[in-house]
Amino acid sequence: MDRADCRELDEACPLAECRARFSLPDGVLYFDGNSLGALPGTTSSNIRDLIESEWGEGLIRGWLDAGWFYLARRAGDAIAPLIGASGGEVAVSDSTSVNIFKLAASLLRRAGARRKAIVERGDFPTDAYILEGAVGLLDRGQELIRAEPGGIADRVDRDTALVLLSHVDYRTGELRDMEGLTARCRALGVPVIWDLCHSAGAVEVELNRCRVDYAVGCTYKFLNGGPGSPAFTYVSRDAIGAFEPAVTGWFGHADQFRFEDRYRAADSINKCLVGSPPVLSLRAVLDGVKCFDGVRMDELAGKSRRLSGLFIDLADERLARHGLELATPREPSRRGSQVSFRHPEAYAIAKTLIARGLIPDFRDPDILRFGITPLYMRYVDVWDAVKLVETVMSEGAWREFRTDAREAVT
Amino acid sequence: MDRADCRELDEACPLAECRARFSLPDGVLYFDGNSLGALPGTTSSNIRDLIESEWGEGLIRGWLDAGWFYLARRAGDAIAPLIGASGGEVAVSDSTSVNIFKLAASLLRRAGARRKAIVERGDFPTDAYILEGAVGLLDRGQELIRAEPGGIADRVDRDTALVLLSHVDYRTGELRDMEGLTARCRALGVPVIWDLCHSAGAVEVELNRCRVDYAVGCTYKFLNGGPGSPAFTYVSRDAIGAFEPAVTGWFGHADQFRFEDRYRAADSINKCLVGSPPVLSLRAVLDGVKCFDGVRMDELAGKSRRLSGLFIDLADERLARHGLELATPREPSRRGSQVSFRHPEAYAIAKTLIARGLIPDFRDPDILRFGITPLYMRYVDVWDAVKLVETVMSEGAWREFRTDAREAVT
Repeated sequence: MDRADCRELDEACPLAECRARFSLPDGVLYFDGNSLGALPGTTSSNIRDLIESEWGEGLIRGWLDAGWFYLARRAGDAIAPLIGASGGEVAVSDSTSVNIFKLAASLLRRAGARRKAIVERGDFPTDAYILEGAVGLLDRGQELIRAEPGGIADRVDRDTALVLLSHVDYRTGELRDMEGLTARCRALGVPVIWDLCHSAGAVEVELNRCRVDYAVGCTYKFLNGGPGSPAFTYVSRDAIGAFEPAVTGWFGHADQFRFEDRYRAADSINKCLVGSPPVLSLRAVLDGVKCFDGVRMDELAGKSRRLSGLFIDLADERLARHGLELATPREPSRRGSQVSFRHPEAYAIAKTLIARGLIPDFRDPDILRFGITPLYMRYVDVWDAVKLVETVMSEGAWREFRTDAREAVT
Repeated sequence: MDRADCRELDEACPLAECRARFSLPDGVLYFDGNSLGALPGTTSSNIRDLIESEWGEGLIRGWLDAGWFYLARRAGDAIAPLIGASGGEVAVSDSTSVNIFKLAASLLRRAGARRKAIVERGDFPTDAYILEGAVGLLDRGQELIRAEPGGIADRVDRDTALVLLSHVDYRTGELRDMEGLTARCRALGVPVIWDLCHSAGAVEVELNRCRVDYAVGCTYKFLNGGPGSPAFTYVSRDAIGAFEPAVTGWFGHADQFRFEDRYRAADSINKCLVGSPPVLSLRAVLDGVKCFDGVRMDELAGKSRRLSGLFIDLADERLARHGLELATPREPSRRGSQVSFRHPEAYAIAKTLIARGLIPDFRDPDILRFGITPLYMRYVDVWDAVKLVETVMSEGAWREFRTDAREAVT
């Protein structure tokens, strides 16, 4: 395997043309599209039109005439096929954290005597923080349980009120068994909230087929919605009827502009909406998702696995000897769309690579993470990235970045 | 008083030059800037730079290099002087509804045995909805009380857990006595959340002087942040220490990127932050607030009162005979930045005016509302608006828009 082979793979790749849908800077090897997706080619002009024409000329009329009122659902319906959901099951609003709160608070409230709210130790921190806060706020004698990694299935029982788990681990990239865990929880009457932040748009997510009832996810990673673009909430058609919103704002009302005295929840996914959406950021989600037009998710996920497989093979050859220890599962079926390594100086290595034009990510305390974005990443990018990491490691160039006073890389 | 007099007032107005800070469409009389502020002249190019340079070129590095991480506080500090707050007391994030939830849930939790959460009947619906939801979620035997308009002061007592009130009534435009009600509540140990959506940026708001501890407000009305731009939360320096967040996301953590297992709240207004902010919409708030540079809020509020006073005087002369009944207080000191009328056909009248190039707002069931935006509204605009309303009313042109099947005007 050499660089020419990678070029050939790129030339033969049916998804190669998707790269042209993005505006990518020259001279940068971008391996952090799982933190912030690249800029779609259409976003800037569409947002300019929104600002200058819909807002500047249309003023308040934009809510109806330009359809701002319907963006939350339009964006949700655009995302639905990418995550195996149906139209009407997804809405885009608020942040992932707020959406977790909305689902978790509501599900904890109706958990009856069940006491355990389970997360996995080491899962993305905000998930556990939000659940910890919701358990405390409700103050019903429930308790947050931090299961050992991989240990949730063993902890779930008939005393479990709620399970919250990321589909893909943000550090190791491990892909969890959505179907199996959901089925096990369902058999015990336990609702599960799946956090799709690190899977939506890169791996196969089959919410309907796996009989998932609740999920959240972000739109600024693999979905390319731009920095902090609002997140999505999914509630299945089966579950939406019984779902009682806990954060009950006017955008979730059955008849928003009747301005009734009392809250009456909409009888749709709209009941998960709360306040006015940030229209600029929400509109940009449509451009991000449009980059998936004509792309089959199984093909895309296949490319992701081939890219990460190539990264792992090359790393075995070239990086293992430099102390970079693979943290990502080798089995393709257990792998999300990233390749992570452990190294005690991961932070300094990440800083060095960024200075050399390769952007990975660092995650406390020792994870060096390379995001794989199959829509716009090439096989040669993987080749060039591993080569550069090899160079930096053999030169020991990262030593100059070693510091005790870390700042966040991202 | 005729149109030439209005022109003279405009020429003599020291704030007249502020109009040039906005991009306003030709041929439109815009009296709905209290629903959605006009487009500042700098927003479009700044957002284009953000998208193309900070995001497109900088990619993930924008969080630090372009300062996206600090926008919530930068925007808050920019708003602070407009509402009589100090630096560090205001942060911009989430929607007004979500921010009300964050404050209300936390305050209800620590209310001990106090049972009453009081809103005013007819106040903006989402405020009551959110409080209703929070009371239900916490399920501590507390109860939502809907006081009669103007009747909150009489209902507050030592059994009151929380008061939530708009500074300016969204329908009538009545300005509430912030200082008096806050003092009365303070004497009884009752926290008050002031909703500044219809006052921030148009009337004098003196949070510190009135010893207000909690407030929220939106940035897309008088603050010109664009459709659905994120809202602000204010917690006073006195109150922030004891404030315990209820929605506990990673952006509110004392050390966000240490990714600790447990939530530890920041020891600042940051504890009111939750998840990733919608950066495009948040950035636009800075341009909106920048339009106030060099403007003294007492001068601006004075101009607002003169504009609305002119509107009322002209309406007395020309509109009263057509059945438009003034709903806004005549005393300038009790008036927010709008002039509202009641008319059974307010909806059809609003539709007719919009078709003729004058944009007011309709609020269910019978309110025709004219927002006064002193930063960019001229005295001649008020003259022209009243004249057009008079024409439409005397022609009876609105009758063709009368319909039973109303859709929302905004």
